[in-house]
Amino acid sequence: MRLARRPVGEVRPEDWEYGEEPVGVPGDGEFLGRTRYLSLDPAMRGWLDDRPSYLPPVGLGDVMRAGSVVEVVASNHPKFQVGDHVVGTFGVQDYAVSNGKGALKVDPALAPLSTYVGALGMPGMTAYFGLLEVGALKEGETVVVSGAAGAVGTMVGQIAKVKGCRVVGIAGGPRKCALLTEELGFDAAIDYRSEDVRKALRTHAPDGIDVYFDNVGGPILDAALTRLAMHARVVVCGAISQYNNEDAVQGPSNYLSLLVRRARMEGFVVFDYARRYAQAAAEIAGWIGEGRIKVKEHVVEGTVADFPETFGMLFRGENTGKLVLRLV
Amino acid sequence: MRLARRPVGEVRPEDWEYGEEPVGVPGDGEFLGRTRYLSLDPAMRGWLDDRPSYLPPVGLGDVMRAGSVVEVVASNHPKFQVGDHVVGTFGVQDYAVSNGKGALKVDPALAPLSTYVGALGMPGMTAYFGLLEVGALKEGETVVVSGAAGAVGTMVGQIAKVKGCRVVGIAGGPRKCALLTEELGFDAAIDYRSEDVRKALRTHAPDGIDVYFDNVGGPILDAALTRLAMHARVVVCGAISQYNNEDAVQGPSNYLSLLVRRARMEGFVVFDYARRYAQAAAEIAGWIGEGRIKVKEHVVEGTVADFPETFGMLFRGENTGKLVLRLV
Repeated sequence: MRLARRPVGEVRPEDWEYGEEPVGVPGDGEFLGRTRYLSLDPAMRGWLDDRPSYLPPVGLGDVMRAGSVVEVVASNHPKFQVGDHVVGTFGVQDYAVSNGKGALKVDPALAPLSTYVGALGMPGMTAYFGLLEVGALKEGETVVVSGAAGAVGTMVGQIAKVKGCRVVGIAGGPRKCALLTEELGFDAAIDYRSEDVRKALRTHAPDGIDVYFDNVGGPILDAALTRLAMHARVVVCGAISQYNNEDAVQGPSNYLSLLVRRARMEGFVVFDYARRYAQAAAEIAGWIGEGRIKVKEHVVEGTVADFPETFGMLFRGENTGKLVLRLV
Repeated sequence: MRLARRPVGEVRPEDWEYGEEPVGVPGDGEFLGRTRYLSLDPAMRGWLDDRPSYLPPVGLGDVMRAGSVVEVVASNHPKFQVGDHVVGTFGVQDYAVSNGKGALKVDPALAPLSTYVGALGMPGMTAYFGLLEVGALKEGETVVVSGAAGAVGTMVGQIAKVKGCRVVGIAGGPRKCALLTEELGFDAAIDYRSEDVRKALRTHAPDGIDVYFDNVGGPILDAALTRLAMHARVVVCGAISQYNNEDAVQGPSNYLSLLVRRARMEGFVVFDYARRYAQAAAEIAGWIGEGRIKVKEHVVEGTVADFPETFGMLFRGENTGKLVLRLV
């Protein structure tokens, strides 16, 4: 699946080019992997734009960048054997040749393969470091997370509960909200489609928000800014409501609350914590094992050709939990 | 000078009510001060709006809140004698009765009286703690300050120079820009009225901005956000370009730069540092004494009745340095 042209606003089918080509042959020090699970993440939208960011944009005509779990089917690499499962950034394709850089062997006996691009992969790491490092979360604080039923949001809320916090999730629709409170242990959920978020935050975070973990931007970020507690931390993780804008991003009108509440808004990129992934993943795996964290995944079965349609689900709010495409 | 009605947008003469009343008589433990210097600050605009902030709004019909330096003319207070000069929040009036709470005796032999509401008062404290504590400035970094020719901006830039930083000021008009580079030691100045701020920042802060000290908000904040260095700090001190808006504040469209650059935007209120004012003022006084910091003041001579017109100068960009009204 190659990027045919740069999308303007919403990504369209014509922005992609799907084709079949001969499978690559691994050279010396390389292996060939067959893709089993493709990761679909809101951040991928940003990689399509030709503007400076934390990663270079996907080149026109290049295979779309994506995290995935592959199974090694041929190898001239000393560290990866046929039959091994490996997580890495192998792209939206059935087979990938890799020199092993950035690739990590994973054990399907320890956790389901999909978990390695979910709760134990980027979204899990993003939630963990965003909340605990950037958000500097303390026991007993009030945490509000937007995009709460998504891959990162479900983990943020549950990690905050493990840490002894009050947790309020903001999500779209009654089904997602019920998931948060009935299954994932959130203290409250706000349905932004049917509720006035600002009013609902007054009810559910009566003493103000200590950590607001933002995945969505736009009017929900603005509502949260009106309810900050003193010395609050706003963690800027993403802004899915703004990624398909054709005009400028809607900046937070209420940013002067940062002044009144002596608060800070801070951005981060999870890659900066790469050296600590293993420790964080082990800790999260422990919580999963103890039943304190539930893994929510939205698995679509299909082929590489189904990528564009499946990717679109993220922006229509159609996934609950981590969205993955299982290649069958 | 009393607040007659809450201004909508720009403050109008009809929003004020000027009148003459008998001078108050100090009771037990009180003193009577005659106002010598009235402080005029952009933050005072925020005190006129009836919305939650870091201080309660000025009540309708109340004497306008303002910092000032008074001379004690009658006293039943053990700590303040007739002839003493005192700085405090005594309001826009010729005479004020005070119980001494929040009042501080100052020495006209050590520094000119006006300095105590300027370089050694709130604006100086705001620059000092905003830059060094909130901005966590380090030697050799690049600092950009907006509203650079104002009371806070002139101090921010000069303190940053004392700390061995590269300093770029953003101000309106060639006269103010010349002041910054020719008199106050700034490395560069950008005239936002005639230059493309974003382009000019590329020229004058080629390695990016480490600390952006924002006094203005609006398009200049947005321009600065496009030029942040990694791990930059944006200090939210004020947003004078937005204070007279009748519609919502213009939020910073480019706030997602915080994510890309792993940067933070943080607000503060100088009152939180009150216990450290004396130490900071002593340090600033030392730099003034050594000629490393120049005090820039814009002194208007007049009466309390001139307050509304003089206050308006702030929002028309007519002052250079700290604006004070000297009562004559």
